Amino acid sequence: MKELSGGLENISGFTFSAIECGIRYKDRLDLALIHSTGPCAASGVFTQNRIAAAPVKLCRERINNRIQTLVINATNANACTGEPGYSNALSITESVGKQLDVGPDSILMASTGIIGVQLPMEIILNSIPELTASLSPDNASLIPKAIMTTDTFPKEFAVSTATSQGEISICGIAKGSGMIAPNMATLLSFIITDASIPKKVLDPIFVRCIDKTLNALTIDGDTSTNDTAILLSPETGTSLSDSGDLARFEEALLLVLEKLSEMLIKDAEGATKCVRILVTGAASESDAQNAARSISESLLVKTAIFGNDPNWGRIACAAGYSGSRVEEKSLSISFEDITLLQNGLPVDYDTDRLQKIISRPEYCITVNLGIGDKEASYLTSDITYDYVRINAEYST
Amino acid sequence: MKELSGGLENISGFTFSAIECGIRYKDRLDLALIHSTGPCAASGVFTQNRIAAAPVKLCRERINNRIQTLVINATNANACTGEPGYSNALSITESVGKQLDVGPDSILMASTGIIGVQLPMEIILNSIPELTASLSPDNASLIPKAIMTTDTFPKEFAVSTATSQGEISICGIAKGSGMIAPNMATLLSFIITDASIPKKVLDPIFVRCIDKTLNALTIDGDTSTNDTAILLSPETGTSLSDSGDLARFEEALLLVLEKLSEMLIKDAEGATKCVRILVTGAASESDAQNAARSISESLLVKTAIFGNDPNWGRIACAAGYSGSRVEEKSLSISFEDITLLQNGLPVDYDTDRLQKIISRPEYCITVNLGIGDKEASYLTSDITYDYVRINAEYST
Repeated sequence: MKELSGGLENISGFTFSAIECGIRYKDRLDLALIHSTGPCAASGVFTQNRIAAAPVKLCRERINNRIQTLVINATNANACTGEPGYSNALSITESVGKQLDVGPDSILMASTGIIGVQLPMEIILNSIPELTASLSPDNASLIPKAIMTTDTFPKEFAVSTATSQGEISICGIAKGSGMIAPNMATLLSFIITDASIPKKVLDPIFVRCIDKTLNALTIDGDTSTNDTAILLSPETGTSLSDSGDLARFEEALLLVLEKLSEMLIKDAEGATKCVRILVTGAASESDAQNAARSISESLLVKTAIFGNDPNWGRIACAAGYSGSRVEEKSLSISFEDITLLQNGLPVDYDTDRLQKIISRPEYCITVNLGIGDKEASYLTSDITYDYVRINAEYST
Repeated sequence: MKELSGGLENISGFTFSAIECGIRYKDRLDLALIHSTGPCAASGVFTQNRIAAAPVKLCRERINNRIQTLVINATNANACTGEPGYSNALSITESVGKQLDVGPDSILMASTGIIGVQLPMEIILNSIPELTASLSPDNASLIPKAIMTTDTFPKEFAVSTATSQGEISICGIAKGSGMIAPNMATLLSFIITDASIPKKVLDPIFVRCIDKTLNALTIDGDTSTNDTAILLSPETGTSLSDSGDLARFEEALLLVLEKLSEMLIKDAEGATKCVRILVTGAASESDAQNAARSISESLLVKTAIFGNDPNWGRIACAAGYSGSRVEEKSLSISFEDITLLQNGLPVDYDTDRLQKIISRPEYCITVNLGIGDKEASYLTSDITYDYVRINAEYST
């Protein structure tokens, strides 16, 4: 497996387009297309929020179809927009389909931005000929930029790996950077590959990889209305069916999603730290996940991380209220290789060395529940003055 | 029912003491006693955190006993302190009992402060003679001060109400002000009364009142290791058994706990707002509670409140991921009497009048799920720069 430079342009058989349509702001890319020259199997994971945005409803209806095109807009989430919002999403995919001679049922849509405002349909529909006309493999690098909201940098990652059928590649892009919670991490992410895998094989692979990555990170604990991750595998790509090849594909896909997850946490609103919370010694996998999530979401833990304070008490506390089986007398907590709590009791440690570790932008906190042998890991960010500023000033 | 000025001194039959023991800091009250001249029925509600502090363990073992005395220390939580921590709590109650000629099984203890540090036993045990010697009805006003941590003002509230047996009074005190989550609101609260009610009647009254007040407020969503609320009803008080009298007692107790809850939210770490989240039209009471809690805990909602931003999209979003039955097409959201969302669609409103409402330090947001007829309300605070500062700077 090797990391590739660049992003979506590494996958042949796809073209891209992104324009400044003016949906909410001037002079920024806000409408994009990812287009496959032929039909693809599509796997999708969507928000668990009961209030799902119109494009999410549309994707859920179409995800079992053969998919050829993704339309994505930024700056307006098309959420809480009722029937008119849903009709607007339909109209946009119809208009794109007409221009590209693709049935609208083969087109998915994703949106991000403000909630509760109808899309400006006239300017969008008027822009679609320009959007479709500029499709080209050369526009790949525009797509991760076009989907950004409060992100400060575009997020893309590509790898290739050898299979018995030859080299295959996978590339993903993603945007954050607030409303990031587990189940489903609040974001848009699109992954394309030149490997061809049937949908019924692709779906469980995608879900397994998402569960360990985009579903295991938290910035503010808010599950958005628009979370969407879609993986496209073209029917005409390098066909993989051998279990060894599928394992290599899954390994590569996992790496892409892991790298995107790290970028999302590093670019979390106002964040200065990317901390891995590793819970080991749990009685069950769900206990490990619950404890890791609870610690990762604790405001007190996140502000302590910001303050470079090795506050293991808040970590023990958050594990304690997670609902998982936790016993004080078997609980141990370490920052990297320095243990602060051993079987429920504080131990002496080298404070200078610990200060160096927690001053780093990235480190790992290990919480050993000391009960079983299951583990899970989460990525979390700190909560800073800038997080509050960004979210208090962002106005409806 | 009438509000009384002052606090614990309104209840005859109790004496109080608070001293500067020097547990962690100099020149601050940190060790306190609430002492009844005779045995009391005691009701207690404690943290749901699996990591419970030593004094909570001790209280759970003794809460069914006839109780005469509460020992409370601030600045050290005696949590995550293992067997030694538990032995220390035992020793302190034994020492107090010896001085007061009260069996240690009739003494409860509560602690608040830093987690994971053993109590300085020598200075505490040496101070107990002074603590017990200074018991007096005149020291009532010291107790709410002695239990403060990051609180900026002492919290007490007293009422009296008429019953068929004569006037009875109830007074409560509480401390916050971080690690405040529902189930059980993270705090210490002690309530005394001169009404005499048997424990088996008192317990359900206390739980009902707590569920609507201290269990229905959230500051940062962190359930602490030390949450403790205790109600003492002396056996020699005004005996209440008539159902009308018990209803009047419950109404008065509810008011005391409501007022203490409001004070806790107003004094939340860094907070500038006290906002009531009222969820109506829910299919069930637990749906109403879940939605109210989810909205109250949302960082995005709390930062929007801080920014005076009527961001109903974030509110709809938080209702949507609460797990409760929520349907976009029946959802309505109002700030006081101004409706922003009606049956899932935004409506026009007077923006100037809305700005005036959301600039107030206190207001109510009503979220009507439009499905059933059940409702629940929560109190929440905003998350501000000062919240981050206080919790990033508080050092272990």
